[in-house]
Amino acid sequence: MKRTGRDRLSAVGFIALLLLFAHAPVARAQDSDAPIAAHLRDAGLKDEWGYRFLETLTTLIGPRLAATPAEARAAIWAEKTLKEAGFDAVHRESFAMPAWLRGREEAAVIAPAPQRLVVTALGGSVATPPQGITAEIALFRLYSNLLAAPPGSLAGKIAVVTQRMPRVMDGSSYGAANPIRRRGPSEAAKRGAIAYLNRSLGTDNHRLAHAGATNYESDAPRIPAAALSNPDADQLERLAARGKVRIHLLLTPRTEENAQSWTVSAELKGSERPDETVLIGAHLDSWDLGTGAIDDGAGDAIVAGAAHLIAQLKPRPKRSLRVVLFGAEEMDYSGPAYAKAHGDEAPHIALAAESDFGARKIYAFLAPPGSAKTAFIKTLADTLTPLGIFLAREPALRSGDDIAPLAKLGVPVIAMRQNGLDYFDIHHTADDTFDKVDPQELDQNIAAWAAMAYLAAQSDLDFRRLAADAQH
Amino acid sequence: MKRTGRDRLSAVGFIALLLLFAHAPVARAQDSDAPIAAHLRDAGLKDEWGYRFLETLTTLIGPRLAATPAEARAAIWAEKTLKEAGFDAVHRESFAMPAWLRGREEAAVIAPAPQRLVVTALGGSVATPPQGITAEIALFRLYSNLLAAPPGSLAGKIAVVTQRMPRVMDGSSYGAANPIRRRGPSEAAKRGAIAYLNRSLGTDNHRLAHAGATNYESDAPRIPAAALSNPDADQLERLAARGKVRIHLLLTPRTEENAQSWTVSAELKGSERPDETVLIGAHLDSWDLGTGAIDDGAGDAIVAGAAHLIAQLKPRPKRSLRVVLFGAEEMDYSGPAYAKAHGDEAPHIALAAESDFGARKIYAFLAPPGSAKTAFIKTLADTLTPLGIFLAREPALRSGDDIAPLAKLGVPVIAMRQNGLDYFDIHHTADDTFDKVDPQELDQNIAAWAAMAYLAAQSDLDFRRLAADAQH
Repeated sequence: MKRTGRDRLSAVGFIALLLLFAHAPVARAQDSDAPIAAHLRDAGLKDEWGYRFLETLTTLIGPRLAATPAEARAAIWAEKTLKEAGFDAVHRESFAMPAWLRGREEAAVIAPAPQRLVVTALGGSVATPPQGITAEIALFRLYSNLLAAPPGSLAGKIAVVTQRMPRVMDGSSYGAANPIRRRGPSEAAKRGAIAYLNRSLGTDNHRLAHAGATNYESDAPRIPAAALSNPDADQLERLAARGKVRIHLLLTPRTEENAQSWTVSAELKGSERPDETVLIGAHLDSWDLGTGAIDDGAGDAIVAGAAHLIAQLKPRPKRSLRVVLFGAEEMDYSGPAYAKAHGDEAPHIALAAESDFGARKIYAFLAPPGSAKTAFIKTLADTLTPLGIFLAREPALRSGDDIAPLAKLGVPVIAMRQNGLDYFDIHHTADDTFDKVDPQELDQNIAAWAAMAYLAAQSDLDFRRLAADAQH
Repeated sequence: MKRTGRDRLSAVGFIALLLLFAHAPVARAQDSDAPIAAHLRDAGLKDEWGYRFLETLTTLIGPRLAATPAEARAAIWAEKTLKEAGFDAVHRESFAMPAWLRGREEAAVIAPAPQRLVVTALGGSVATPPQGITAEIALFRLYSNLLAAPPGSLAGKIAVVTQRMPRVMDGSSYGAANPIRRRGPSEAAKRGAIAYLNRSLGTDNHRLAHAGATNYESDAPRIPAAALSNPDADQLERLAARGKVRIHLLLTPRTEENAQSWTVSAELKGSERPDETVLIGAHLDSWDLGTGAIDDGAGDAIVAGAAHLIAQLKPRPKRSLRVVLFGAEEMDYSGPAYAKAHGDEAPHIALAAESDFGARKIYAFLAPPGSAKTAFIKTLADTLTPLGIFLAREPALRSGDDIAPLAKLGVPVIAMRQNGLDYFDIHHTADDTFDKVDPQELDQNIAAWAAMAYLAAQSDLDFRRLAADAQH
């Protein structure tokens, strides 16, 4: 889909609007927030910078697995791109972590019907022996059936869990299914299994397995673990219904202990209260199978694109605005690493938000706890209504994994809720590529984030106090 | 999707209907055709045998590449299954051909942005050198642009054609795009190219390349050739728009010269004119990436399922009915091999038809040339109308590759036209698996084919003469 250049007359009108309010008396500043937010929103709908940012990231960098040279190239590129985009300060910082590197991954039914199976190793999985593992499978259509299996009952077998993940708009089924991938390998190992396969945590029907990290528990042997594509899980169900099934599995991932990941941040310095920061983030790393377009190149484009629009404003918004592109989210390192390096700044972060759920339209937003009736939320809701976004009833308690550790440190969050109906068709697969992103839907996100970030940075509200008051 | 058992009351009614007409005077036999055809149609809509046939073929055999042990297993299984299904005679015959066997296939962008590319070798392709080929690409967005390139202009380069195939209901865009895959490698080689990649002849946006045979011309060097997945073709277009692109390609297919493929046929002996045959066919081999569910396990299930319903009839239809499950269609051997072995029977084949376009519903049928105004076609049209099938205006000139050589020998054909809007999303990819088949849509096919095959076998029409008359 091609887009024409941004409307130049509209840009002129925008600047005129800014000049008008720039010289308004301080008492009227609050009145000027709404029209500027609306103008940012409308500019966002015609934005081209964000979509181009995403195209370049997914094309010239492509896959960018945590703590690999590709992720480092992405960070260097992002730093350069943001420096050219009018931010007041841009920097790149590293943190140490091991790099998990995918190797060969092969699986096949050996008997009764030889045929290839599509699998992908779970992130963090150990390797099989070099010759692979050949064993009978123990297939569980429900994860709870695996948990009910007695100790020793899976001795010498490859445990296979084929439970399906429902398709829902808000993505909540992913959280419900997560233990299947996160804890399944250790639960199977505790019962004697020598390897583990789970149906991909995905809602598609393609021969593409969904990657994703697993977490070994300390009290269980570490067994090789991989995800099956959905049609392959179906096939194993049909074969297992007919009798014993033997499969072969070869995984050769390895871990490099002394690697590093990168975080890139860009700041617009607040014009009135620069020591108070509104933080908006997304993660720069991706899984290695696709090019990280919807997860989370889109989030990067959305938060950077929104801030890029605000960066055109003179004067700056009152509070500082910080864009953070996190490294190593997929490996669970990003949030803890950022909180460790920047935890002392937490009291100065007025509000935080993250975009990490693809590139489809936002349909609702969640107010910070206790703030739903404030003028800030009223203005934000009025600004977002034309985008088809409503204020959700429940408060924002979290807004993405990268900022969850900041939230634990008391940083209030605001959240945007995107249409995720097809998100888990693509999530963590080779299919996560640029062509999956609709530029109009991406721009709707940029429009909403620009308005939200601007209003939050202009706001005088103490969201911490509102949240504390709401608890009593 | 689960289905309940076939309606037993309906089966009783069916038998009563047969008994009623079995003893009717000969002069009224024609009148009995329509209700029996209608009953076959209705039984087809509740059929379970065909769907189970397809489930077993795709599960217990899985992929069945021409002239491989898997194809031989499929033929043995099909022979056994058809013998148990009430046919009068079932047999399996072999023919010699080379087996082309896929090996490793790896491709990657080397510069400017290292990343993996998803490719699959074209059927019949030669291998690259063991270390692969690394070279700059020459990218053509239109195949005609490659054809317009002067001799020598591609020297040392990998030619890449990224022309898109349109999505159309009747699949005619495939024929239009076919030269890109069939002739592209030789056209590129004539201009100096050392390897060839084409955008998959497919309408999806998944990271799954579409296989398919290519044909080297005798006057051009044989260069390695593969298909790119659609998103990878997009990626190369974006990279090529930025400057030079170097890629690495490794393909290790090999050919076994002395292999054999198998044809399985099952016959119902005609009760009045057994020496006249109605032939309905599909192909048993498949590409190796998927399990050949829509291409062409569905066709096998449709024609075998239709004949299985007719096999319950006593007496048999007047003409003999032959089901042929062809081997090695994907490698272009099936039709010529069958015509070579059975060409002398061609004058005795009254009518032939093939099902090889997936498992979606039939929406039209094409009458044999010159037959559109006959009572046979009128009865068939009336029988199929409740299935949402209309008589197309144009006559049937072909009905599948397997029977095209028979048609050249003068065998008249009839054709069913299926909804192919999503056929080329899946065709020749790893995604061609059982889960893609809707049992209700499959049954609509079985219903239509049962009615058509029955009416054709009951008909007295000389379709050869009608076709000849229509030409004058």
